[in-house]
Amino acid sequence: MNPIQVGLLGIGVVGSGTFNVLRRNQEEIKRRAGRGIEITMVADLDVARAQSLVGPDVKVVNDARAVIANPDIDIVIELIGGYGIAKTLVLEAIAAGKHVVTANKALLAVHGTEIFAAASKKGVMVAFEAAVAGGIPIIKALREGLTANRIEWIAGIINGTTNFILSEMRDKGINFDVALKQAQALGYAEADPTFDIEGVDAAHKVTIMSAIAFGIPVQFDKAYVEGITKLGAADIKYAEQLGYRIKLLGITKRRELDAAQHTSAGVELRVHPCLVPAKRLIANVEGAMNAVMVQADAVGTTLYYGKGAGSEPTASAVIADLVDITRLHTADAAQRVPHLAFQPNAMSDLPVLPMSEVVTSYYLRLRVADEAGVLAKVTGILASLSISIDAVLQREADEVGGQGGVVQIAQTDVIILTHDCVEAKMNAAIGLMQALPTVLEPITRIRKEELA
Amino acid sequence: MNPIQVGLLGIGVVGSGTFNVLRRNQEEIKRRAGRGIEITMVADLDVARAQSLVGPDVKVVNDARAVIANPDIDIVIELIGGYGIAKTLVLEAIAAGKHVVTANKALLAVHGTEIFAAASKKGVMVAFEAAVAGGIPIIKALREGLTANRIEWIAGIINGTTNFILSEMRDKGINFDVALKQAQALGYAEADPTFDIEGVDAAHKVTIMSAIAFGIPVQFDKAYVEGITKLGAADIKYAEQLGYRIKLLGITKRRELDAAQHTSAGVELRVHPCLVPAKRLIANVEGAMNAVMVQADAVGTTLYYGKGAGSEPTASAVIADLVDITRLHTADAAQRVPHLAFQPNAMSDLPVLPMSEVVTSYYLRLRVADEAGVLAKVTGILASLSISIDAVLQREADEVGGQGGVVQIAQTDVIILTHDCVEAKMNAAIGLMQALPTVLEPITRIRKEELA
Repeated sequence: MNPIQVGLLGIGVVGSGTFNVLRRNQEEIKRRAGRGIEITMVADLDVARAQSLVGPDVKVVNDARAVIANPDIDIVIELIGGYGIAKTLVLEAIAAGKHVVTANKALLAVHGTEIFAAASKKGVMVAFEAAVAGGIPIIKALREGLTANRIEWIAGIINGTTNFILSEMRDKGINFDVALKQAQALGYAEADPTFDIEGVDAAHKVTIMSAIAFGIPVQFDKAYVEGITKLGAADIKYAEQLGYRIKLLGITKRRELDAAQHTSAGVELRVHPCLVPAKRLIANVEGAMNAVMVQADAVGTTLYYGKGAGSEPTASAVIADLVDITRLHTADAAQRVPHLAFQPNAMSDLPVLPMSEVVTSYYLRLRVADEAGVLAKVTGILASLSISIDAVLQREADEVGGQGGVVQIAQTDVIILTHDCVEAKMNAAIGLMQALPTVLEPITRIRKEELA
Repeated sequence: MNPIQVGLLGIGVVGSGTFNVLRRNQEEIKRRAGRGIEITMVADLDVARAQSLVGPDVKVVNDARAVIANPDIDIVIELIGGYGIAKTLVLEAIAAGKHVVTANKALLAVHGTEIFAAASKKGVMVAFEAAVAGGIPIIKALREGLTANRIEWIAGIINGTTNFILSEMRDKGINFDVALKQAQALGYAEADPTFDIEGVDAAHKVTIMSAIAFGIPVQFDKAYVEGITKLGAADIKYAEQLGYRIKLLGITKRRELDAAQHTSAGVELRVHPCLVPAKRLIANVEGAMNAVMVQADAVGTTLYYGKGAGSEPTASAVIADLVDITRLHTADAAQRVPHLAFQPNAMSDLPVLPMSEVVTSYYLRLRVADEAGVLAKVTGILASLSISIDAVLQREADEVGGQGGVVQIAQTDVIILTHDCVEAKMNAAIGLMQALPTVLEPITRIRKEELA
């Protein structure tokens, strides 16, 4: 059988990794797929550079549409990125009857519903293993490996840049700004790191996993997104003393109606720094590595760990998609793995809950005047809202202020861990506590998940 | 579309879990598979018990052949276990044109080649996700998720019973016999625990993974199998002091020809207790949990963690196979995922290496007379065979012996960690060291893997 021909749009870091791995392991891949898989045409704005990467046997053009128009090409890989021209080209490739492989999480998290509908209508596949957690086959695990299960929640370290920064902050006791500079110097963070450190990249990925886990449309606009830029070394240290690590997690959770707690049924979809018990395996995922924990009713907890980015790890996922398409393109379209795990006519209308309806536990740090009765007032406010306390850590007082003979104020940190409550209630409690004259600085609130 | 009909052979722990999960999550599964999946017929020797488990709507018979002969049934699940009647029935089901799902690792590790050949000839699928690591979708990860890669090695905690026992031995400082009794009392070990504690169960599983990773036939008879029955609390404690944990690992590794080291090309296939650096994620897999680490050229290290046994975790894997078959049975047989990951006509003839040709590093514990020059003699033997030493731990001397006025002999433990060497060389070294008059007891040798 002739090799299946693949066109590549954009030959940057992941594109060249894909080309190299496909060529280096071509025999091994053919022995698995039963058919050769070859990139025969590449589109890139820098034609000369692209040609030097792929050699003289591969046709290189600067016009992506020439690849899409090539009738010998069955699969188009989109590695351009972003929502702009990438979206247009993916839709054009689908319209031309090509199967599409993409690593573009931003595109799918925002426009996935439209793209998958177009693909289903045309009878082609859009595969995107590389869009979430790089080389870890998490999309396959969720869509195929766990099909027996009702998935309850997913919590993932799905951004290597921020996990590297948090690991450095903890290891070295340094602040965010210093750790970011180190990450940039080492190539773990980009010159403009906004998408990573503000949690946007992780939110794209958890949006896609949420859709697959619960059979809901991708709804990036409903995701709560909070990054790591405000985390201080002190909170990391206090968390450690209480037996926790702070990780940036992408979390999505199915929530039933709970009349007693006044919470609605729906799906939580959120990215934020999170305290995790230090003994959990995921708390020990260090550096730029990724890991995704999945809780499901039959299998219980499973965890998937590996490199979430980089040239060849991401290429590994792109090529796995190429092999899948090579295998599946002869199957009845109705029998293929659905794009979002559930058949398009069997999607759920479970709403994504607003952050105020999320239920979680909390780490609170209050900078207070060291006076009698402060703790009683604070805990009284929590009790009045039926928020129960799991642990309190009170530091010895520091003497601060007092320049030029002014009276010094003794201050101290009070750290409170709470049990689960609805975020709206916690917002109210923080408002009341913040209004106390003895609470001297803005209260730090970090969410906490036991992941048990 | 009508539901796909499934026949179940054997309704024990996993069978009833499969029936229950399939029924409980039937809507969710149908939304994913695009078609209902129903167990409509069950064969079990205890018909009354089986009927009470499945209710009146499912036909229950005591003759498995009646299930196989039922023309309405497309898929047969074999959950009988063992090599005997299970083999006959699987082959008969294949001959009758049924797809087969099995959790029977023993059957596949020993007779897999014959069974897969029969299935390929008949054009049916034999699916076996549940045979390795229970609910963890590791077969899918290896066969489909990592198709881009040249796999280098796999190391797995793939027997929950022994991992539970080792966790207890370390946590509580107890010996093997005590920990085994606790595991039996808690239901983690069977009344006859031989297959688990002697490493046979793990060897069945790593044999299957080895075939899938390297495209070689299943060759259980070539596997090296060593259990945990001889491990002592002292070795676990010494390992801890050196920064290691002891785990029972199933290991399979691709080895290139190395003329300098006089080692041949081939595949290592072995189960034995193993020192693993305590900081590795896999070293922190505790209790009855399973985890499989895979090293591959493009993706690097990935790890898959979850429950390796139990009713519903195993059912999760069985049902994932049912969904896969429901999806794939309309695809060209040539395009399906090959049973052993590689096309039957593209298998490798890489030999499984004998244990004497395995390359690894070692932990050695020698009980020696506390005399000057002992360490020099021991290290001299290692040096003479070009075995290099990574670390030495020498304990303070104990006074032992000396009953009834007999002269006491001061004894001590010397622990040596070596760098990599060929096992044949280590065997020679141990022989020479054992012959030293100052070495007082049989030398303890535990292999060590850095898993870096």
